[in-house]
Amino acid sequence: MIHPIERKVLSENDRVAAGVRSRLEIVGTLTLNFIGSPGAGKTAFLERTLQLLPSGTSAAVLTGDIQTENDAIRLARHGFPVQQITTGGACHLDARMVESHLWEWRFKEFDYLFIENVGNLVCPTSYDLGEDGKVVVLSVAEGEDKPMKYPGIFRKAELMILNKVDLLPYVPFQPELACEYARTINPDIHIIQCSSLTGEGFGDWMAWLERRRIAKRHFSPNHEEAHLQTTFV
Amino acid sequence: MIHPIERKVLSENDRVAAGVRSRLEIVGTLTLNFIGSPGAGKTAFLERTLQLLPSGTSAAVLTGDIQTENDAIRLARHGFPVQQITTGGACHLDARMVESHLWEWRFKEFDYLFIENVGNLVCPTSYDLGEDGKVVVLSVAEGEDKPMKYPGIFRKAELMILNKVDLLPYVPFQPELACEYARTINPDIHIIQCSSLTGEGFGDWMAWLERRRIAKRHFSPNHEEAHLQTTFV
Repeated sequence: MIHPIERKVLSENDRVAAGVRSRLEIVGTLTLNFIGSPGAGKTAFLERTLQLLPSGTSAAVLTGDIQTENDAIRLARHGFPVQQITTGGACHLDARMVESHLWEWRFKEFDYLFIENVGNLVCPTSYDLGEDGKVVVLSVAEGEDKPMKYPGIFRKAELMILNKVDLLPYVPFQPELACEYARTINPDIHIIQCSSLTGEGFGDWMAWLERRRIAKRHFSPNHEEAHLQTTFV
Repeated sequence: MIHPIERKVLSENDRVAAGVRSRLEIVGTLTLNFIGSPGAGKTAFLERTLQLLPSGTSAAVLTGDIQTENDAIRLARHGFPVQQITTGGACHLDARMVESHLWEWRFKEFDYLFIENVGNLVCPTSYDLGEDGKVVVLSVAEGEDKPMKYPGIFRKAELMILNKVDLLPYVPFQPELACEYARTINPDIHIIQCSSLTGEGFGDWMAWLERRRIAKRHFSPNHEEAHLQTTFV
């Protein structure tokens, strides 16, 4: 049940997101939108990801929070361009915020753009940011039933990072059950179990990321076309 | 920066919340609104609280979720009346939802009403439910800087439960820093460190709860007046 005003806001957001997507398509940047609760470990996960990117890879991060620049400071230590988006109260990022920050970089050709959304399993789900895919981050310190309680994001995500698996010996959390619930909501969801502390699962994640980027390059007619134009004009 | 439509919704909510508060005042029920991220451990915390209530105490729970009756089923095992509020998508409870569920109990004279809000550190903060106080639940599996990133709820809460302290040996979390940040945002906030698994901190919490209930009875003119009316009319 969506209020007419909310519908109008969302449709305006969709329009802006389509513009962002089309520009990112042209420059061939794989863009992922990370959504999870506060404390699910999104920033630490992205920090480790940046450390593991093969040399020569170009990547950028937009990180959203209600207040503080903390996450941008943490992420910027890894030598990649990072911008903090502080929403000043809003519970989610929207396409306009992403667009204006991407203009700061003049939509440069990055291999990857990682967007860390505001910590919230609900509101960010409804806002398309122009990304290629959504990644939901669920920590094993939360409950297994989160996919059933917050089905929206698990339905829309193509990948679930089951995070902080180093804590499994100390928490009453059954990972099989969490995966079963996630697949009940979304049978196609891909799941990788990770720990940003120990590095467990990061081999699979980095391989997934590389495959996803190559698949995008191959199946993106816009990018090919843009590339041809650059080459022949 | 609040949109005029949002302001209208909030002011309508405040009107309903004032009605709920005044009824709860008359029946002398101490009402607490629990707010925290998904997976902060609100349900387990309330389960242990119900187990520890002195015999003869009357209490009820309203538990909010986007989907599922899971939490109501867990909470109802402890022999107290429980109702699930499923918001069907909304990211917070509002006063109207609370009011309609309280009518189901005909605003019975409970000693305590515990309201477990939807798992979300942002949106529930703006919606008064007619409660006496807000309790923010922060798990040590999240980051220490959550009070700085989500200042709204830490400013409004009178009590912070620093939860899952049994995990402290396994997570890079400094409780002193989290408390310092919380007090930077809200110098008056009371903090109790708890674990629903081991029971640590529940002595302090149950004592706080009892003191808070007695203080409410003593300082609530409405209740005294209502009580006098019941006694002498």
